[in-house]
Amino acid sequence: MADLRLQIIVASTRPGRIGRSVADWFQPIAEAHGAFEVELVDLAEVALPMFDEPKHPRLRDYEHQHTKDWSDTVARADAFALVMPEYNHGFNAALKNALDYLAIEWAHKPVGAVSYGGVAGGTRAWQLLKPVLAVLQMTPVVEAVHIPFVHDHEDDEGRFAGDDVMAEAATAMLDSLHRTAEALRPLRSDLATG
Amino acid sequence: MADLRLQIIVASTRPGRIGRSVADWFQPIAEAHGAFEVELVDLAEVALPMFDEPKHPRLRDYEHQHTKDWSDTVARADAFALVMPEYNHGFNAALKNALDYLAIEWAHKPVGAVSYGGVAGGTRAWQLLKPVLAVLQMTPVVEAVHIPFVHDHEDDEGRFAGDDVMAEAATAMLDSLHRTAEALRPLRSDLATG
Repeated sequence: MADLRLQIIVASTRPGRIGRSVADWFQPIAEAHGAFEVELVDLAEVALPMFDEPKHPRLRDYEHQHTKDWSDTVARADAFALVMPEYNHGFNAALKNALDYLAIEWAHKPVGAVSYGGVAGGTRAWQLLKPVLAVLQMTPVVEAVHIPFVHDHEDDEGRFAGDDVMAEAATAMLDSLHRTAEALRPLRSDLATG
Repeated sequence: MADLRLQIIVASTRPGRIGRSVADWFQPIAEAHGAFEVELVDLAEVALPMFDEPKHPRLRDYEHQHTKDWSDTVARADAFALVMPEYNHGFNAALKNALDYLAIEWAHKPVGAVSYGGVAGGTRAWQLLKPVLAVLQMTPVVEAVHIPFVHDHEDDEGRFAGDDVMAEAATAMLDSLHRTAEALRPLRSDLATG
């Protein structure tokens, strides 16, 4: 049984988003891959307010229950797949907000992108995020699923279905997340039981 | 009388922020400069929720009253000074959220940074923001006020006071914002009365 946990984080929270549908396509691929216990984390359901902690997250001295809950959620993960949109060639605010709330909970964990958008398939948002991930001591993997013209892969009910190329990219990314999560294991603090 | 409006946008919204105090230092400098009618816009007071519009902002078909109000506010500006923190080497979520809500309201208007932080004085956040500003057709000016070790300039009551070098940088930035706002005037739509 897999003892590494992958969290699929749905970054878009707006009404009408396609992000949740992209995650619903990716999740069974991640489950079938077998290396991870898979957990879907939808930022629309997490519903964090705009960052409102008075102290720096590196102190891990959180005032609000929503922060403590978010800390518990992220602490139990070993790897992340960010299902992320591109807004104005950058990452969306809800994703940056969710990242900024915490610090050590993210550290020494690999992260991959399932990004989507128009012509660039969300690659600019992913690129802009890398300096932020570096500060959080996350390890972005180079294998990624980038989905250009995402609405071309939507059916009449708004369900997204990726093609074979995307599914192969997903598997390559999951392989890399698994290798990296295993390798970084000695660096990770056991925050979940700490 | 100045017929160009500068909005000083306070980007940090968290409790304990120093951003409002930095803006309170900058505002009288901007007023004394004389080129602009100066308006303080505090994102903590604007209090936008996480982006929740179903349609793309370029359509300018807003569903929510908070978006319509924000559109009216930004539309009446001719230039912006962003009083911005640096979170994880990037811009904070509240600022990206406020930018992403709108589109044409930002276009053809110059923008300068009054950024603050630790060793880098917020320069990394400002740098990371430039690709986003470019999509919005904003013109970042190179003159800027970057404040390293911002808490070294705070008194016992938490009031920030910049030094002479910062005040000179502010004046140079205001000069450049003024020249650029004048030059770009023919490109701006008159959204306020549109």
